[in-house]
Amino acid sequence: MDESQLRDLLSGIASGSVDVEDAVAQLRHMPFEDLDYAKVDHHRALRTGFPEVVFCEGKTSEQIIGIFRAMADRAASVILGTRADKAKFEAVREEFPEATYNEAARVIQIGAPTKDPDIGPCLVISAGTSDIPIAEEAALVAEAVGCPVGRLFDVGVAGLHRLLDHHGQLRDAEVIIVVAGMEGALASVVGGLVSQPVIAVPTSVGYGASFGGVAALLSMLNSCSNGVVVVNIDNGFGAGYFAAMLCRQIAGK
Amino acid sequence: MDESQLRDLLSGIASGSVDVEDAVAQLRHMPFEDLDYAKVDHHRALRTGFPEVVFCEGKTSEQIIGIFRAMADRAASVILGTRADKAKFEAVREEFPEATYNEAARVIQIGAPTKDPDIGPCLVISAGTSDIPIAEEAALVAEAVGCPVGRLFDVGVAGLHRLLDHHGQLRDAEVIIVVAGMEGALASVVGGLVSQPVIAVPTSVGYGASFGGVAALLSMLNSCSNGVVVVNIDNGFGAGYFAAMLCRQIAGK
Amino acid sequence: MDESQLRDLLSGIASGSVDVEDAVAQLRHMPFEDLDYAKVDHHRALRTGFPEVVFCEGKTSEQIIGIFRAMADRAASVILGTRADKAKFEAVREEFPEATYNEAARVIQIGAPTKDPDIGPCLVISAGTSDIPIAEEAALVAEAVGCPVGRLFDVGVAGLHRLLDHHGQLRDAEVIIVVAGMEGALASVVGGLVSQPVIAVPTSVGYGASFGGVAALLSMLNSCSNGVVVVNIDNGFGAGYFAAMLCRQIAGK
Amino acid sequence: MDESQLRDLLSGIASGSVDVEDAVAQLRHMPFEDLDYAKVDHHRALRTGFPEVVFCEGKTSEQIIGIFRAMADRAASVILGTRADKAKFEAVREEFPEATYNEAARVIQIGAPTKDPDIGPCLVISAGTSDIPIAEEAALVAEAVGCPVGRLFDVGVAGLHRLLDHHGQLRDAEVIIVVAGMEGALASVVGGLVSQPVIAVPTSVGYGASFGGVAALLSMLNSCSNGVVVVNIDNGFGAGYFAAMLCRQIAGK
Amino acid sequence: MDESQLRDLLSGIASGSVDVEDAVAQLRHMPFEDLDYAKVDHHRALRTGFPEVVFCEGKTSEQIIGIFRAMADRAASVILGTRADKAKFEAVREEFPEATYNEAARVIQIGAPTKDPDIGPCLVISAGTSDIPIAEEAALVAEAVGCPVGRLFDVGVAGLHRLLDHHGQLRDAEVIIVVAGMEGALASVVGGLVSQPVIAVPTSVGYGASFGGVAALLSMLNSCSNGVVVVNIDNGFGAGYFAAMLCRQIAGK
Amino acid sequence: MDESQLRDLLSGIASGSVDVEDAVAQLRHMPFEDLDYAKVDHHRALRTGFPEVVFCEGKTSEQIIGIFRAMADRAASVILGTRADKAKFEAVREEFPEATYNEAARVIQIGAPTKDPDIGPCLVISAGTSDIPIAEEAALVAEAVGCPVGRLFDVGVAGLHRLLDHHGQLRDAEVIIVVAGMEGALASVVGGLVSQPVIAVPTSVGYGASFGGVAALLSMLNSCSNGVVVVNIDNGFGAGYFAAMLCRQIAGK
Amino acid sequence: MDESQLRDLLSGIASGSVDVEDAVAQLRHMPFEDLDYAKVDHHRALRTGFPEVVFCEGKTSEQIIGIFRAMADRAASVILGTRADKAKFEAVREEFPEATYNEAARVIQIGAPTKDPDIGPCLVISAGTSDIPIAEEAALVAEAVGCPVGRLFDVGVAGLHRLLDHHGQLRDAEVIIVVAGMEGALASVVGGLVSQPVIAVPTSVGYGASFGGVAALLSMLNSCSNGVVVVNIDNGFGAGYFAAMLCRQIAGK
Amino acid sequence: MDESQLRDLLSGIASGSVDVEDAVAQLRHMPFEDLDYAKVDHHRALRTGFPEVVFCEGKTSEQIIGIFRAMADRAASVILGTRADKAKFEAVREEFPEATYNEAARVIQIGAPTKDPDIGPCLVISAGTSDIPIAEEAALVAEAVGCPVGRLFDVGVAGLHRLLDHHGQLRDAEVIIVVAGMEGALASVVGGLVSQPVIAVPTSVGYGASFGGVAALLSMLNSCSNGVVVVNIDNGFGAGYFAAMLCRQIAGK
Repeated sequence: MDESQLRDLLSGIASGSVDVEDAVAQLRHMPFEDLDYAKVDHHRALRTGFPEVVFCEGKTSEQIIGIFRAMADRAASVILGTRADKAKFEAVREEFPEATYNEAARVIQIGAPTKDPDIGPCLVISAGTSDIPIAEEAALVAEAVGCPVGRLFDVGVAGLHRLLDHHGQLRDAEVIIVVAGMEGALASVVGGLVSQPVIAVPTSVGYGASFGGVAALLSMLNSCSNGVVVVNIDNGFGAGYFAAMLCRQIAGK
Repeated sequence: MDESQLRDLLSGIASGSVDVEDAVAQLRHMPFEDLDYAKVDHHRALRTGFPEVVFCEGKTSEQIIGIFRAMADRAASVILGTRADKAKFEAVREEFPEATYNEAARVIQIGAPTKDPDIGPCLVISAGTSDIPIAEEAALVAEAVGCPVGRLFDVGVAGLHRLLDHHGQLRDAEVIIVVAGMEGALASVVGGLVSQPVIAVPTSVGYGASFGGVAALLSMLNSCSNGVVVVNIDNGFGAGYFAAMLCRQIAGK
Repeated sequence: MDESQLRDLLSGIASGSVDVEDAVAQLRHMPFEDLDYAKVDHHRALRTGFPEVVFCEGKTSEQIIGIFRAMADRAASVILGTRADKAKFEAVREEFPEATYNEAARVIQIGAPTKDPDIGPCLVISAGTSDIPIAEEAALVAEAVGCPVGRLFDVGVAGLHRLLDHHGQLRDAEVIIVVAGMEGALASVVGGLVSQPVIAVPTSVGYGASFGGVAALLSMLNSCSNGVVVVNIDNGFGAGYFAAMLCRQIAGK
Repeated sequence: MDESQLRDLLSGIASGSVDVEDAVAQLRHMPFEDLDYAKVDHHRALRTGFPEVVFCEGKTSEQIIGIFRAMADRAASVILGTRADKAKFEAVREEFPEATYNEAARVIQIGAPTKDPDIGPCLVISAGTSDIPIAEEAALVAEAVGCPVGRLFDVGVAGLHRLLDHHGQLRDAEVIIVVAGMEGALASVVGGLVSQPVIAVPTSVGYGASFGGVAALLSMLNSCSNGVVVVNIDNGFGAGYFAAMLCRQIAGK
Repeated sequence: MDESQLRDLLSGIASGSVDVEDAVAQLRHMPFEDLDYAKVDHHRALRTGFPEVVFCEGKTSEQIIGIFRAMADRAASVILGTRADKAKFEAVREEFPEATYNEAARVIQIGAPTKDPDIGPCLVISAGTSDIPIAEEAALVAEAVGCPVGRLFDVGVAGLHRLLDHHGQLRDAEVIIVVAGMEGALASVVGGLVSQPVIAVPTSVGYGASFGGVAALLSMLNSCSNGVVVVNIDNGFGAGYFAAMLCRQIAGK
Repeated sequence: MDESQLRDLLSGIASGSVDVEDAVAQLRHMPFEDLDYAKVDHHRALRTGFPEVVFCEGKTSEQIIGIFRAMADRAASVILGTRADKAKFEAVREEFPEATYNEAARVIQIGAPTKDPDIGPCLVISAGTSDIPIAEEAALVAEAVGCPVGRLFDVGVAGLHRLLDHHGQLRDAEVIIVVAGMEGALASVVGGLVSQPVIAVPTSVGYGASFGGVAALLSMLNSCSNGVVVVNIDNGFGAGYFAAMLCRQIAGK
Repeated sequence: MDESQLRDLLSGIASGSVDVEDAVAQLRHMPFEDLDYAKVDHHRALRTGFPEVVFCEGKTSEQIIGIFRAMADRAASVILGTRADKAKFEAVREEFPEATYNEAARVIQIGAPTKDPDIGPCLVISAGTSDIPIAEEAALVAEAVGCPVGRLFDVGVAGLHRLLDHHGQLRDAEVIIVVAGMEGALASVVGGLVSQPVIAVPTSVGYGASFGGVAALLSMLNSCSNGVVVVNIDNGFGAGYFAAMLCRQIAGK
Repeated sequence: MDESQLRDLLSGIASGSVDVEDAVAQLRHMPFEDLDYAKVDHHRALRTGFPEVVFCEGKTSEQIIGIFRAMADRAASVILGTRADKAKFEAVREEFPEATYNEAARVIQIGAPTKDPDIGPCLVISAGTSDIPIAEEAALVAEAVGCPVGRLFDVGVAGLHRLLDHHGQLRDAEVIIVVAGMEGALASVVGGLVSQPVIAVPTSVGYGASFGGVAALLSMLNSCSNGVVVVNIDNGFGAGYFAAMLCRQIAGK
């Protein structure tokens, strides 16, 4: 409700065309409706393809199903459950037979996103094969948001030519997600090669002084290449969501 | 503005006793006034003695004086500047000749708090003499909020009898602030002796593996005594503010 | 034993009405009785509702039952066992059939606290559904201490309106406990909205750079809002105990 | 050089229209020119407004001037020197009298960026006044890249209404940079309010358990809001560069 | 072999009473025998009661039995296996039926130490019941070294009177071991009460910000009491060994 | 392809002896072939004995077998799988019956390296018996690279004579690997005794404040002895590879 | 006051030989006198040579002089001020012309300790020349406590023979203090060579990954040698005090 | 002294050709001479070019000059002082007018190393200009050890082509030192490009989450490239020394 609508409402009261109690009802939650102005935008986004996402870790199957059901009632076009183990998927599938499961990425999905050729693509790169689960989580989320995704896996800096062999894919992507554990150097190398935005995802892949992904995280935060931003360790979801959000924005959607 | 006031306002419009434009002006910022409902309480508190407080570290003298001036214009009864070095005080005094300065606590003060015998007292205990600046900061802030303060300094656990000699003071306090660096054990010991709330302030006093107060902070967070809560390292202000807030609440003010 | 009681005792000896050996027996432990002055207060508190609490983690079922039995012999009105898994509860229930168990909060309880309408309420807020076990632990402990508790769960800052929708509950609470993992921002937001004391409980909910609750802990310790104090990660017990202690003190009990 | 150009060149040799030595000269560095394909894009970007940026910390005035001179020779439209103290600026100005200096942001600038109304705006928000230097660095860099910038400073979560009062600015920005020290909660709150990309910059503002910005960094990495990415502590440059890069990309430039 | 023995040996050669080859044989390993001078002392100590100790964690049952057998062949009077789980004990007992096992302390023992009333006693104090396994490990090791041990368990600072009730035991001990997890304050409190050496053992008992014993470790390293030294987290063995070594030295053995 | 080869190729086109399309085909990937110059060296090294190594942790048996098969197709003389548990070995052996397994080192090996008496030896020293798995991994890798290896296990500094007894082995090695957990002092001691390069491998052996190998890692990084370099915690592979690479280089192979 | 004295006092009252008020006065502070039983021992120790020690860091010259004056009034035989810079010494000397100053160790001393040939000696070993200030602090404190001290400086493990050349000193010491920065390996090496108690003092000498002494601290806490205990980083005072306390106890004083 | 020499000596005594006292004198220090066997090698190395090196940080000018004088007396061909500020150099030059000083590297040098064309070269690569001081320290030390050094500075991964442009230098080096701060990715990239040993030196260049070089250190320890070893943060000396030691060994010197 903006100021002119407010003025209309009050004028309606003054003229007797609006009942006081009706106006109270409308105004009572105005602060929050107003606060929600962004949420309205967000809701618009949802209607055009943003998925509803449930972080399943630490929730019971019952809780997950309950939330999915509420989302389905709101007619969400795509519902994702991230960090879901197989047992939770099995439970969900009993209620939602159409649900699918990507075991590597640990993602439950209900509903297929609309594919819009004007959006993206974004490119998801992983340094090693062990980083693929997180890379795949990022890719699935970006696709669920409606953004086509290219995948380029196992192209770490120990064999730089593997990356350079795919310069076409690098060039054509609008946004690039780099998923890497161990020393995470791939983010800087990609950032130095391209002029598009790079979203770096440190993973917990490694041992010893990788400290569960801290080495990769610090490496990425300190990247000497411009245009590199970072999300939490193993946060494939966050990177995929952000990348797709950018691609949609670039496409003007 | 609560719901009944809103209804009155709208009824006023309906009856013609309130002008639409006046109502728009009142309602335009309603969300934030409403959001501010707590702030109104807070403002009431301020009128009855809560000080305006400026964290001076990292602000220029010009910025500090500007903020003080704005506060004075709002007729704040007491204005505090914490973590202010002497040069900043000198600059402030040129504009506010009535300003006083506690060099140990690095606190600038303008205006005297009202003293209310029904409130408190709270007791500020320090483990060592090096902890006194933070302890004094806590005490000054609590006094500025209008809560009488007892001080009991240099009673660390290396000589427990020094603490036990003052059991009367311990017994009579409504809230106790324990300020300690090094291993911070005093908070647990006091917490084990009394049944009042204890607010523990770790200080950066120490060297080597005290890691700038981390040892004391962890010690206090892990206290085996019930009724001990913790604030940031060297946060005398936060402890004094919280303690005085409690004492006022206990006194029903 | 205070000074006048001491004088009476000694006068009794002088007048022959007290036997020397009886006086020795009374005085022998005087230091500790005296030290215990606070404990006497504490005992008084216990009689009026403070629970006996056993931290069950790292204790065998036998040890827990033994301690419970000793407490029951002292006629404790309420006995709590925190951080107890279900197997320990089963073992306890064989001895204490009246024992109840809150599985989410992992709390065993024997006896019902007296409910005193003059006390509190305190309000327990959780940021996410995964924080509920710790929030529930805090609530159960506060209730066991005799303080009515409101619950407001899953109102994290990612959807601020969820919190603002409940401003009535925020306004009516005397003390507010904020339970949050991940970035723990809710504590600062609540602290900025209200003028009551806020007790922040960081939880280990999160992954990657949450470092088992460290991110939330640091966030809360560095809160830019006044009136926020902190307890250990996942220490629902400590927050509930402290909050109820405050509410009782405010109620003058 | 792409494949068709290569084919043309070789055909030119075959037909005698291209000299072998000329072709050797062209091909000699082909790998790196090819590698540079992205750099060519980047160079194009530079011609249309991307600045040349020198990180001045840890470089001597002589080194800085030398690099500036080389950039000027390449006819860079805008040259920035970040993290430059005043003495270095004085030295630079002797050689480049047109250089200007933003003391708060510690940025030297030569040349004015072209202003393109089709780009952006991005919005730079700071939580406190002490965060302004980093926020201003971000804003200056984004402007130097050719992106209009809105500024909204000192709107931390301790007084949420200050932020909400400016919802228009929040709504109109294409990208939002949030600069915050201490607990860094503002990033999550803004991320929860808007649907645009949020770039979070933790600052080293704070004391004690802020650990030089680590508290804010961890808070931002663990944000419960979607659409939040993070750069290094105090890295205003990186955030401004990334934000402007996005805005240009959204504008199709 | 000291210089006079060397001179005798060489004179023996000069006089023909010692064969050159015999002397070569004696001198060949002299460096190591000499290096071993301390070991000889050590061996003497062993003969008079120092146990042979095997750290069993990370060794297979076969390896442990092999080492025990070698020790038995050297006629060690007492053999200890620390950090041994029950399965390893079962395996050991098949070979050494006389072996005993303390399950709490996870210590296997073969042979009974001689008890010498002139030595010690040392006193082992634990803060909580959960610290008892480490405390018991310390006690068993000290006893195995031949030093009588007093035990005083569950006397943490949350109830200081529990400790003070046993001042006699404190006074009579020659060396005191304090075993505490959580905030580890007991070490400082005991160190402040007594004038004997205190050996502090931090334990990993606790949760959240205890960080596996780091809180207690830092607390003990930063003790404000004189006469407190520290061993590794959960290193009951090291404390018991050191304490018994001191008591023997004090007794002149 | 170097410049003279490039000139020849282009001259061939000019003279008509080389077809344009053939030249395009050759030049198309030139950058990467050129980049690969080092890889060619590397391939040469492989032909003369460098093994192909697969890090098996975090890969499925299927993935491992697939990679092994590809390597076998390239006729790798030796294939190693490191950090492989027994189940993975069982799976591999079904496909490669000639595969062998070192259980302590968790290494799968296919093919026997050629033994060249002109190379090495390198010496692998371990501080304790618990460090042997990592030491053995280093030794197996060095042997697979074609470098003879001496082993000297359980010679930690607690009994220095055990090390000194083997000075012959120390003297004869060309490169020395020191594998140690706990405090890692052995690396400095060996580095102080010898003049050959020492490669230090911290292990995660230890407990409490060893922090999973951090204590040993820091100890080795801060060695006061010259000629000591360090690899990641538990990185026996890296040390063995580096040592063998050095020995081959010294032997001119 | 022990139990028999208490009985005498009460009997005196019963018999009329003691006045009730006199008895009250005597008993009023009994708890703390009793608590002080250890302090009495301590006072005895002080009379026979234990120094009064003031930690000067973080205290003003005025505070230091005030404390020294109070100590002198109590007729302390030796007064030490540790961590005192030269300016503080100059100030102290104006009041106490007999004060001396050890600049390396930053120790002010008033009064000469009595030298008792029956005590000690203890031996202070430093790894490098940069560790000497802390080593010297330890030595001065031990001497002030009345324990003869041997010094053996710059004998780090990079040149082990330097240590072994002095095996006589090692053998003759009753207690050994090892002061080492960087990797701190010397503590383990000495602990492995001798059978006496070793007190390890990590120093902040080093750079990079020494992290201000953390590397040495962790190294010492994880020592694989028996009989090694640790004090805080740079805590020469604590080690010297503890060592001298042991030597006096061994000497039966 | 080896066994045959020992036998000769003893036979000399037996035959009367050697005096007992002379033999005692020779044998008295035998252990340490023997221990020193490696040192003899080392001495040989020194005579052929290994420099004497003094770490000047934390030593007074007097101490440094004293050590230099002792070295000069031993006729050291080259003396280096590392981490020496200019004031210390000035003091040294008064005594040693031939001393030279590299201000960037903070290295004092006396005497010129012999240049041996058969050795090396090693190549020192730096990522940025701010890393040059440490890179230069490494280069100077390697040269002082007698190993020719190539330098390749400012070739970080943000502009990979800068590195690839110099593949000739990469190919020709026998050992490569990579000096990099910030995220330290250059070490992995170089390690992936070459087949020679790579010694990685993390530097403290960076800010925020570089944590004084920790980010680069962890990055290098976790390198996914084979053949990379690591030294302490900013330890140019250690890398240069190790690299030159390898080059000499490869050259058979």
